Amino acid sequence: MTREGEDRRAFLRAGAALAAAPLAGAALASPAAAQESTANLAASEVQAWATNDTSGTFAPQMIKRRAAGPKDVVIEIMYASICHSDIHTAHGDWGMPTFPLVPGHEMVGRVVGVGSEVIKFREGDYAGVGCMVDSCGECANCLADREQNCLNGTTFTYNSEDKVSGGVTYGGYSKKVVVTEDFALRIPPGVDLAGFAPLLCAGITTFSPINHWDLKPGERFGVIGMGGLGHMAVKLAVAKGAEVVVFTTTEEKIADAKAFGAKEAYLWTDEEAMKKNMGSFDLMVSTVPVAYPMQPFLNLLKLDKTLVNVGALFPIEGAQGMPMGFGRQSLAGSMIGGIAETQAVIDFAAHHGIAASYELITPDQITEAFVKVVNKEARYRYVIDMTKA
Amino acid sequence: MTREGEDRRAFLRAGAALAAAPLAGAALASPAAAQESTANLAASEVQAWATNDTSGTFAPQMIKRRAAGPKDVVIEIMYASICHSDIHTAHGDWGMPTFPLVPGHEMVGRVVGVGSEVIKFREGDYAGVGCMVDSCGECANCLADREQNCLNGTTFTYNSEDKVSGGVTYGGYSKKVVVTEDFALRIPPGVDLAGFAPLLCAGITTFSPINHWDLKPGERFGVIGMGGLGHMAVKLAVAKGAEVVVFTTTEEKIADAKAFGAKEAYLWTDEEAMKKNMGSFDLMVSTVPVAYPMQPFLNLLKLDKTLVNVGALFPIEGAQGMPMGFGRQSLAGSMIGGIAETQAVIDFAAHHGIAASYELITPDQITEAFVKVVNKEARYRYVIDMTKA
Repeated sequence: MTREGEDRRAFLRAGAALAAAPLAGAALASPAAAQESTANLAASEVQAWATNDTSGTFAPQMIKRRAAGPKDVVIEIMYASICHSDIHTAHGDWGMPTFPLVPGHEMVGRVVGVGSEVIKFREGDYAGVGCMVDSCGECANCLADREQNCLNGTTFTYNSEDKVSGGVTYGGYSKKVVVTEDFALRIPPGVDLAGFAPLLCAGITTFSPINHWDLKPGERFGVIGMGGLGHMAVKLAVAKGAEVVVFTTTEEKIADAKAFGAKEAYLWTDEEAMKKNMGSFDLMVSTVPVAYPMQPFLNLLKLDKTLVNVGALFPIEGAQGMPMGFGRQSLAGSMIGGIAETQAVIDFAAHHGIAASYELITPDQITEAFVKVVNKEARYRYVIDMTKA
Repeated sequence: MTREGEDRRAFLRAGAALAAAPLAGAALASPAAAQESTANLAASEVQAWATNDTSGTFAPQMIKRRAAGPKDVVIEIMYASICHSDIHTAHGDWGMPTFPLVPGHEMVGRVVGVGSEVIKFREGDYAGVGCMVDSCGECANCLADREQNCLNGTTFTYNSEDKVSGGVTYGGYSKKVVVTEDFALRIPPGVDLAGFAPLLCAGITTFSPINHWDLKPGERFGVIGMGGLGHMAVKLAVAKGAEVVVFTTTEEKIADAKAFGAKEAYLWTDEEAMKKNMGSFDLMVSTVPVAYPMQPFLNLLKLDKTLVNVGALFPIEGAQGMPMGFGRQSLAGSMIGGIAETQAVIDFAAHHGIAASYELITPDQITEAFVKVVNKEARYRYVIDMTKA
C-alpha cells in the first residue's frame, strides 16, 4: 500500500469513527476498543461445530482462522443457518468431504476487526458471508460479477481448497470467520439478523432467477417445493408484485404459503389444480432437492417460458421432448449468484421488510436439526444462535 | 363472400393471368386449361402410398381428397420427403396410428386448382405443405403465428382428425392434396423443388431455434446429430454467418459437415474435442431422435446459453442439476414453427441458395427407405419422386 493510500484510509476511518460516534456508541472510538480490535486481527483458534464422518453428528472442535490481511474483515458469527446442501455435503452425497467438516454458508455476524485497506466495513457493522469466500477477481466471469464461475476456481465457504491458508475452508458453524471484504456482504443494522442469514444462500438462489428471467409485477410465478429456498422464493416474488402460486407435498404448508403472500397453494396430488393451471405460468422455480418427474410442472408454463431448477442437483427426471418442444419451454439451471447480486437481495429484502422464517437453535441442536430438515420439519430454516455457544 | 370481394378476386386473377402469360406458358390461360382447372376442384380419389400396420410396409392405395372450397388450393404433389417422425408414427412409437396411414409432411408440388377466394396462388405456381393443414385462425396462438399451438386444436398433415372432411388426414405420400391456402407455402419457381421439400419440416424445425434464440454472425453454433434435421441446421446456420460445429456418431459425416460449411466436426467419442469445446458455444441444437446423455453437451455451452432439443421426443436423459445450475444453462424444447416462419425459411433458403441434400427415390422404395433412415444411411433426406408414380 502506498503512503497516499494509507493517508486516504486513515482519513476515511477517522471520518467513519466521527460519524459513527453518536450513533453506534462512543465505545468504538475508545482506546480500549482499538486495542481489542487490533488483537482481533491476529490468527486465532476458534470454536466450531464439526462432523468427522458421514453420520451427520456434530460436536465442538477448535479450528484455526488466519490472521486478517489488509483487505480482510474478521466477523464474530452471531447466526448461521442450516442449508440442505450442508446436509448433502456432510452425508457424503456429493462425494466424500474432507473431515473435520465445518459446514455453514449462510452466516451473519458483527465485524470485530478490519484490515488496514478495508473500505466497506468498520468495526461494529454487521456483515454476512454466503457460499463463497474468494475468487481471482480478474477473469472474465469475476469481472462480470459471476464469482461463482471464476475461471481460476472459486473458493467456496467450506470443504473447498483454502488458497490463502492451505487445507480446506471451514464454514459458518463456528464463532468467527476471516474473509476478504470483497466476499463479505453489508447487512443493514436494523434488520432481523437471524432471519437475514438465510438470504446468503436461500435468498440469493431464489432471487437470482427472479432477476435473470425478469419476473414482472402481475406475472404468474410458480414455486415448486416450499422449504428453505421455496419460502424465500415466495416472499421475494410477492415483494416483486408477482402472482405467486405454491405447489407443495405438505398439506400444512398451504396455509403458510398464503401467509407469506402466495395467492394460491396446491398439493402436487391435486390433479384438478394441475389441470387448471396448465399453460398459465410466466416463470417457475423448482426448489425440491431431489429428482422428480418435472414434465407435469413444465406443462404449467405458458409458451416459451422457463422452469428454473435450483433444487435437484443430480439427474433431471421426467422432462419430455415432445411437450417441451410444442410449447418451446425451457428447463434451466441456476445456482446462487454473484456477490453484487447477493448484496442486491439483502438490500431488496431490507427495503421490503422481508426475512426468512426460522427457528432459532443452539449449536448442540445441529445434529437433531439435520434430521428434521430431511424429514421436512423445518419451518423454514434452522438458524444456529452462535452467541449461545 | 361479398359481391365486392368477388369482383376484387376476379380482377386479381385476371391480372395474374395476364402477367403470367409470357412467363409461365400461355397454356394456363387457354380454354382447355381453364376446364381442366375447374375439374381439379372436384372431390377425387387419388393414389397414395399407405401402410396398414406397424411393419412399415407401404403399398399403393386410393384415398379421397375433398372438393376444393373457395379458400383451398389443389396441389399435385411432385416431391414428398421422408421425415424420421413418419417412421415413428408408422411404427406406432407414438401410440397406435389410424390405418391406413399415409405419412408425409414435407411436400412440394404444382398448384393445379385454386378456389374462388384464393389470394396467394394461381395455377402453375409451386406450393409446399408442411406439418399442419389447418387451425382455428382466431385464437391467441394462431394470431401470434403459432398455428402449431392452436388453442382449438391444430390439424396436422396426417394421422390427425380431419375437421373438414371427417376421418383422419392423409399426408404427402400421395399424388394430390387439397389444403386451405393459409397452410400452403409459396415455393419460388427457380429452386430445386425436390431439395425444398425437406424445408417444410426439417428446415423450419432447425431454423426456428436459430431465429428464436437469435443466433448472430460469428457466434459459435453446435449441431448434435447430422441427419435430415442436422444437415439443414448446418446449412442454415452457416448461411446466417455463424461458426458451425458438428458432433456426429458417424465418421463419414465429418467430411460432409465441412462440405456443408461447418468449421469443425467431431465424433462424440472424441474426448479431446469434448474437453476443448467446453464452455464455447452460444447455442446448440440437438437433432438426435432418441434420448442420450445430454450433460456432456450442455457442458459445451457458455454461461447462460441454451441447448435446444428438436430431436428426442420422449424422456430427456442425463441432464444434471448441478452443472446446469452453475452455468445457468438451459435445455429447451422447440418443434416446427408457425406458417409465417415456415415461409421465412423457404425465402431464406432461396435467397442463400440452400436446399436439402437428398436422394431421389420412387414410391415403391418407401419401405426400403424407412429401414435405411433408421440405419443412418440417409444422405440426408430420401425424397420420393411422386411424378414417377
